[in-house]
Amino acid sequence: MGDYRFLKACRREPVDVTPIWIMRQAGRYLPEYQKIRGKNSFLTLCKTPELAAEVTIQPVERLGVDAAILFSDILIPVEAMGVPLDFHDGKGPILGKEIRGQADVDALSVPDPTDKVPFVMETIRILRKAFQGKVPLIGFSGAPFTLCSYIVEGGTSRNFIKLKTLMYQAPEVYRSLMTKITKTVIAYLNAQIEAGAQAVQIFDTWAGILTPGDYEEYALPYTRQVVAGLSRGNTPVIHFANDCATILSAIRTLGVDVIAVDWRIPLDVAAIVVGQGVAIQGNMDPTMLFHPPEKIDDCVRDVLRRGESAASHIFNLGHGILPPTNPDHAIAMVEAVHRFGRKGMAVPR
Amino acid sequence: MGDYRFLKACRREPVDVTPIWIMRQAGRYLPEYQKIRGKNSFLTLCKTPELAAEVTIQPVERLGVDAAILFSDILIPVEAMGVPLDFHDGKGPILGKEIRGQADVDALSVPDPTDKVPFVMETIRILRKAFQGKVPLIGFSGAPFTLCSYIVEGGTSRNFIKLKTLMYQAPEVYRSLMTKITKTVIAYLNAQIEAGAQAVQIFDTWAGILTPGDYEEYALPYTRQVVAGLSRGNTPVIHFANDCATILSAIRTLGVDVIAVDWRIPLDVAAIVVGQGVAIQGNMDPTMLFHPPEKIDDCVRDVLRRGESAASHIFNLGHGILPPTNPDHAIAMVEAVHRFGRKGMAVPR
Repeated sequence: MGDYRFLKACRREPVDVTPIWIMRQAGRYLPEYQKIRGKNSFLTLCKTPELAAEVTIQPVERLGVDAAILFSDILIPVEAMGVPLDFHDGKGPILGKEIRGQADVDALSVPDPTDKVPFVMETIRILRKAFQGKVPLIGFSGAPFTLCSYIVEGGTSRNFIKLKTLMYQAPEVYRSLMTKITKTVIAYLNAQIEAGAQAVQIFDTWAGILTPGDYEEYALPYTRQVVAGLSRGNTPVIHFANDCATILSAIRTLGVDVIAVDWRIPLDVAAIVVGQGVAIQGNMDPTMLFHPPEKIDDCVRDVLRRGESAASHIFNLGHGILPPTNPDHAIAMVEAVHRFGRKGMAVPR
Repeated sequence: MGDYRFLKACRREPVDVTPIWIMRQAGRYLPEYQKIRGKNSFLTLCKTPELAAEVTIQPVERLGVDAAILFSDILIPVEAMGVPLDFHDGKGPILGKEIRGQADVDALSVPDPTDKVPFVMETIRILRKAFQGKVPLIGFSGAPFTLCSYIVEGGTSRNFIKLKTLMYQAPEVYRSLMTKITKTVIAYLNAQIEAGAQAVQIFDTWAGILTPGDYEEYALPYTRQVVAGLSRGNTPVIHFANDCATILSAIRTLGVDVIAVDWRIPLDVAAIVVGQGVAIQGNMDPTMLFHPPEKIDDCVRDVLRRGESAASHIFNLGHGILPPTNPDHAIAMVEAVHRFGRKGMAVPR
């Protein structure tokens, strides 16, 4: 128990070989996922514990990764706050609650996760039983800033003009909304840990659109509250932000166990910025899986070599695996990591 | 002649005050542009010298910026290479030439700009006469990598999978296409300089999607050929890449006069990376123009203060001005730069 190479790497303990998992490893690039998804809407998949558990297990079996990550969506707790949520194929999420002023924030709730999203905790319990110690299970949540951007923009965005207008022109409304989201995220992640998640990852997908100054003023304080509010115990906390090169020194101050970075910053450079007091996760460019399989070895070795500069390295892509990826190329990557990864003390997967 | 504060700043000579111009300053946020655009398609605007000149002049008169930039589109020379080009409102450019193999590259030409895009050079000549020395005129081109991405993707892209697939799986076809684009860009920029452009900017909008390693392998060598192929004389060359923090040390090796950076990297950090042998242009976050006007002073002063670390600083946004921007906020920014900018030797605007 707790002796998994993934969890040991999170804690900067020696491992038998560099562990690997893949962001969005349960998803559209897998035919076995497509098969289940073909019969169920995306939200049905998220909200039906048996189905969510099944697609969570698929990549563990197919790819031989060293950790599973709960199949869900970062907007599940947002819907529970009272924001109508829908997914249209190819268009991404559509959120149906405009934030025009304080009254719109006041209308949102801080949901009790065991009451409002019990299916998430049930999925975690099913998975813990199913894995029986084979691989550890990662829970996750969006970071407050990223969830806020979805709420205010009503979906994904290119330039985040609605969000910036709220931030800059009605900062008190923005801060009130962020505080409510922060409380929601804390309760949500603690419920996942309570249900059996053995590590949690905080996704701040959109943090990288901010200047470092704005990141420190408008996003970081809320993520800091999240980290402080977690019942961490022995549960590693991972932080991921895309396009994070220039905010990495700020992220370092969060005191998480693992900092996950995107592919733009080489891991040896990232290691200089974050230092030796934290593990690093990442960061092969997801598009590098479009290399011919025989070239993937070289891509993996370059990331591993740079990862040697980190106190501890968990291999991952620098962002989610892309839907058109050939699963055989993902398998080639996992095998290469296990073949070439740093060797240390022998521990179970 | 040549004593403009913008050109002096490009050459790292003392100026009376920090110069400013704005990427996409001729464009949709201006009602006077919308009026002309309402009667003409975007491509008609680009290809009719009198109209292109008129919208180029508008922001100089309205905002009081220190340089004009030719109104055109980076895809104009791509169309001249033989790639059908269309613009649909709200959807961006649509390019109608699939690159499936070497034959598709062979079918493209390296156009003689005076023969195939004479309207660009005519616009430049009209503008030089119209400005009569009031402000200098900047010409521009897309960098080979960015133009290649539009051709291969057929437009804008989110993950550049078609481009990466070509790069990784058919590198010889990719390199053949890049070589043809590079020759096109060199001839195109030299024709602009010959026609009267007093500085040229190379836009590598999408370079920031690459890992630093891929940037150096697949993009930088071609931009280097462009820089080497220019009849530079006394004409400053500016290089802009969006999301450039982690490729900045590679960009530095290009030997351009000015490196323009996006808003993610503070200018004092950028100055450490690029050193004192080059001027820096940038980099206020375009969304900061959604601040109330009274806050824009603070945003400008922060950029100016960091810009003091550079050998020379040309103020600009970190990316193009956004269409929903209030022109009065842009004016407030220009005035703040002229009020607070570094003071040196008195020279004409």
